Amino acid sequence: MTSKKLINSVANCADDALAGLVACNPNLQLLQGHRVVLRSDLDSLKGRVALLSGGGSGHEPAHAGFIGKGMLTGVIAGAVFTSPAVGSILAAIRAVAQAGTVGTLLIVKNYTGDRLNFGLAREQARAAGIPVEMVVIGDDSAFTVLKKAGRRGLCGTVLIHKGLISVWVQVAGALAEAGVGLEEITERVSMVTKAMGTLGVSLSSCSVPGSRPTFELAADEVELGLGIHGEAGVRRIKIATADKIVTLMLDHMTNSSNVSHVPVKAGSSVVLMVNNLGGLSFLELGIIADAAVRSLEGRGVKIARSFVGTFMSALEMQGLSLTLLLVDEPLLKLIDAETTASAWPNTPRVSVTGRKRSRAAPTEPLEARDSTPAGGVASKKVVLVLERVCSTLLGMEDHLNALDRAAGDGDCGITHSRAAKAIQGWLKEGPPPARPAQLLSKLSMLLLEKMGGSSGALYGLFLTAAAQPLKAKTDLPAWSAAMDAGLEAMQKYGKAAPGDRTMLDSLWAAGQELQAWKSPGADLLQILTKAVKSAEAAAQATKNMEAGAGRASYISSARLDQPDPGAVAAAAILRAILEVLQS
Amino acid sequence: MTSKKLINSVANCADDALAGLVACNPNLQLLQGHRVVLRSDLDSLKGRVALLSGGGSGHEPAHAGFIGKGMLTGVIAGAVFTSPAVGSILAAIRAVAQAGTVGTLLIVKNYTGDRLNFGLAREQARAAGIPVEMVVIGDDSAFTVLKKAGRRGLCGTVLIHKGLISVWVQVAGALAEAGVGLEEITERVSMVTKAMGTLGVSLSSCSVPGSRPTFELAADEVELGLGIHGEAGVRRIKIATADKIVTLMLDHMTNSSNVSHVPVKAGSSVVLMVNNLGGLSFLELGIIADAAVRSLEGRGVKIARSFVGTFMSALEMQGLSLTLLLVDEPLLKLIDAETTASAWPNTPRVSVTGRKRSRAAPTEPLEARDSTPAGGVASKKVVLVLERVCSTLLGMEDHLNALDRAAGDGDCGITHSRAAKAIQGWLKEGPPPARPAQLLSKLSMLLLEKMGGSSGALYGLFLTAAAQPLKAKTDLPAWSAAMDAGLEAMQKYGKAAPGDRTMLDSLWAAGQELQAWKSPGADLLQILTKAVKSAEAAAQATKNMEAGAGRASYISSARLDQPDPGAVAAAAILRAILEVLQS
Repeated sequence: MTSKKLINSVANCADDALAGLVACNPNLQLLQGHRVVLRSDLDSLKGRVALLSGGGSGHEPAHAGFIGKGMLTGVIAGAVFTSPAVGSILAAIRAVAQAGTVGTLLIVKNYTGDRLNFGLAREQARAAGIPVEMVVIGDDSAFTVLKKAGRRGLCGTVLIHKGLISVWVQVAGALAEAGVGLEEITERVSMVTKAMGTLGVSLSSCSVPGSRPTFELAADEVELGLGIHGEAGVRRIKIATADKIVTLMLDHMTNSSNVSHVPVKAGSSVVLMVNNLGGLSFLELGIIADAAVRSLEGRGVKIARSFVGTFMSALEMQGLSLTLLLVDEPLLKLIDAETTASAWPNTPRVSVTGRKRSRAAPTEPLEARDSTPAGGVASKKVVLVLERVCSTLLGMEDHLNALDRAAGDGDCGITHSRAAKAIQGWLKEGPPPARPAQLLSKLSMLLLEKMGGSSGALYGLFLTAAAQPLKAKTDLPAWSAAMDAGLEAMQKYGKAAPGDRTMLDSLWAAGQELQAWKSPGADLLQILTKAVKSAEAAAQATKNMEAGAGRASYISSARLDQPDPGAVAAAAILRAILEVLQS
Repeated sequence: MTSKKLINSVANCADDALAGLVACNPNLQLLQGHRVVLRSDLDSLKGRVALLSGGGSGHEPAHAGFIGKGMLTGVIAGAVFTSPAVGSILAAIRAVAQAGTVGTLLIVKNYTGDRLNFGLAREQARAAGIPVEMVVIGDDSAFTVLKKAGRRGLCGTVLIHKGLISVWVQVAGALAEAGVGLEEITERVSMVTKAMGTLGVSLSSCSVPGSRPTFELAADEVELGLGIHGEAGVRRIKIATADKIVTLMLDHMTNSSNVSHVPVKAGSSVVLMVNNLGGLSFLELGIIADAAVRSLEGRGVKIARSFVGTFMSALEMQGLSLTLLLVDEPLLKLIDAETTASAWPNTPRVSVTGRKRSRAAPTEPLEARDSTPAGGVASKKVVLVLERVCSTLLGMEDHLNALDRAAGDGDCGITHSRAAKAIQGWLKEGPPPARPAQLLSKLSMLLLEKMGGSSGALYGLFLTAAAQPLKAKTDLPAWSAAMDAGLEAMQKYGKAAPGDRTMLDSLWAAGQELQAWKSPGADLLQILTKAVKSAEAAAQATKNMEAGAGRASYISSARLDQPDPGAVAAAAILRAILEVLQS
């Protein structure tokens, strides 16, 4: 069975993809009747040399994504993994010539089909009097013995796209004649290619639209040194850590007994490309980039620039390639030159090696000293309140779990017991702060850390917000304001409102009653008693509510005939507080 | 079984990925002890407002890829698909505050965990006296009825990252006080979110490192409207063409009966984002972009900008999301503002709709008239030669196929017969050009088009190159030079050398003998006879050669005890020519 793809038809997929690219990038135009993309400002290139590249489709963003000022003039695409038609290559050469360019350089990846078709178009163009040169890029570092066909063209080709126009500009400055300039570029490019190597590794195959995957890999295997069409690599190895695989790759690429190695050694300066072959997650790509930087720097290699992204893909292959290019300052300048090409990354022109990659964590402000002596009368009362709250919650564990099983995952009791045990443990460490603002802040931190889950975060939020009004005053109006602030924060970040069948229902009901604390001469216990009763009633009322927030909201069809455990627990906490204050 | 991943450990994968990102981007630094990335030029932001974002890892390049001038100040990352720790969020807020920024805006995607943890950090920072505001982004257009939790935060968040600093710069110009500025930004962002919608579709699930895929899809199903962690979408549908799926998505996103729709209609101006959810091939992404542009323009919508790439991924999920943002000129200016963020694409600041997307194909130069009348004596001889070549090749079909079966795919005879039939058909259309250069060029085109394969391209190359020396002269030295040019082109582009067991072996042997034509008074037939014999001997000699190029070179271990069919065919062609010239 063929692989699932989002396409319109197998026959037109390369055309549709090019059309999409051109539609979304106003700097590009299609050449009518051909699978050719050209700069839309072609007519501004009079007297310049044109750079054309291309090859089979399926390697996007290569090559059309690299068209722009400072990179390619145009590209010729073939069907997926198929060399472009000679007629289209010739049409592209003619188009740039008719726009007034003085010569064309073809940049071709070393594959037989591409060599032949671009070569033939070149010969035909020359026969028609158009000056055309051609460079064949082979940057593959996979094969340790020389193959007649030479090194395959891989992701390093993109670095050639990047450096070339600038080479031309320099060369053209010194040499008046275009023909000479072209030859000079050709020579320079050949030199650069020798200082470059690429090696791929993949966890999966890829599949051409309408076809099955080109090869199969076992669940614990990766293919090393494979080509960008899924051609066999140098070997299959068992999957290992990213560090080990990157070390193996770099060892292979730089081993001088490998004829296709890059002569990188301690003290060398390199450009590193970490290229996604298509379907690897960018999380993994980052991990590989980290491993490659560490491994190279561990070898004493200086990384001048590092480009991480998708440059030359093999459809949806879950793999990557590493490219190393030995650079000196003049070459680096070319790599750094500005470009408008859409697929060239926005990478800073600063050395990767030799800079500080972290900054010190911010200093924590010293906690303001509690001027109220801990262990005083107030503090003892606080201990009694907290102990009662804890024993209450621990006693309710099974009941809360049972209520939660009807609507959630049945761990509400466990979560609240975890909070209770954390508070009990904390109380054993010493007397709690006597100042209410500090007490609530401390409890907030504790619940956040130890209670966990959404309940922990919501209680944490409630307590953090409630602590604020208690910083200045601790009278009854301030406590009512604290309740208001806590409720507001809980609603704001938790997105629950009263009536949504959550812990907020009980707390909200209590908060309404506690407004009375704001009136002059209000009675603490009398009003608190009303508040607790109201909270308990609200908790019971949740049994008739539809869940509007929290996990229960996702099972709207379930019959919820029990009260919400969070609301029940909150009401019980309030009653525990009341009981100690009354005693 | 868990999915294959290139990582070092499940526990550290988010940290390693961040380390890689920071290592390769000198504009970024890690905050020691936290999963926090900040601009390395943080200390240059004194007196400015800081923009922090973040969330679970696994959405790379979001969010750290969007740190830079003109975008984010920093990000806080959690474990994969897990909200960041409150302590790290607070540390980031403290770090930017200690660097001298006057306030912080948190940009948070609408997920419960993120809302609670960022909210809590905000409350704690405010309690410590640091001005912090928070905007929650919900751009999901999947759900047609209002959910209490609100719209999920998806790829549109990246557009908010893009526009915000610029809003701030504007606002700060008018309003002196930072606090006011922050509120102004918050309000503006909320407005923008209402004019924005995102919808995803996927062919596959994704898997958190160390886990199995989060859901399963049948081989012919796609999931519509899913979240960026693989949460269920609005429905599963059968896979269809890219056009149909995009139409369905845009219909859903803009349908006014969908509460989360984007109010896009004919005449609207939009920014379009086509976002790879991770593992979709860029070929498919281009096809989707094309479909989206056509569908939107077909609805009369003006596409002001279109961003195509990977912005907000869901690990390696093979899917994409479309984001539409209604824009006016001021908002577009903000989207267009310069940024140094590495993951923001290099997209031209030009309207997508309303421009010419193709240019006319180049005009073919008129063929130079053949002054030698076709159908003359020379032309008749040419017809005889070609007819004999064709009948010879047709008579050898089975023999060539048999030779080819030993080393290749057994179609060498078929390929040569195809060429012969093409020439026969062409001869019936009228007399061939009498001028040798034109004759060879015509034959080159014909073989290229009709013979196909590498043989067609190689004969095409040979003939195109051989035609050149015959333009000026057609004497015997010119014919020898033609042979030289043909052989050179064949070697250059085909990468075969004499002795590699290819058709070149016979042609090369003949070419050596034909050098004698360059001597004054050389005898055509005498030398040609020697050349043909030499070619035939060379063809036979290939039986002892190891294949060095072409398909046979890949089966080095096979015992090749028959001559190469291509070499045999080339020798036979030369003999056919000789026989006609002799008669």
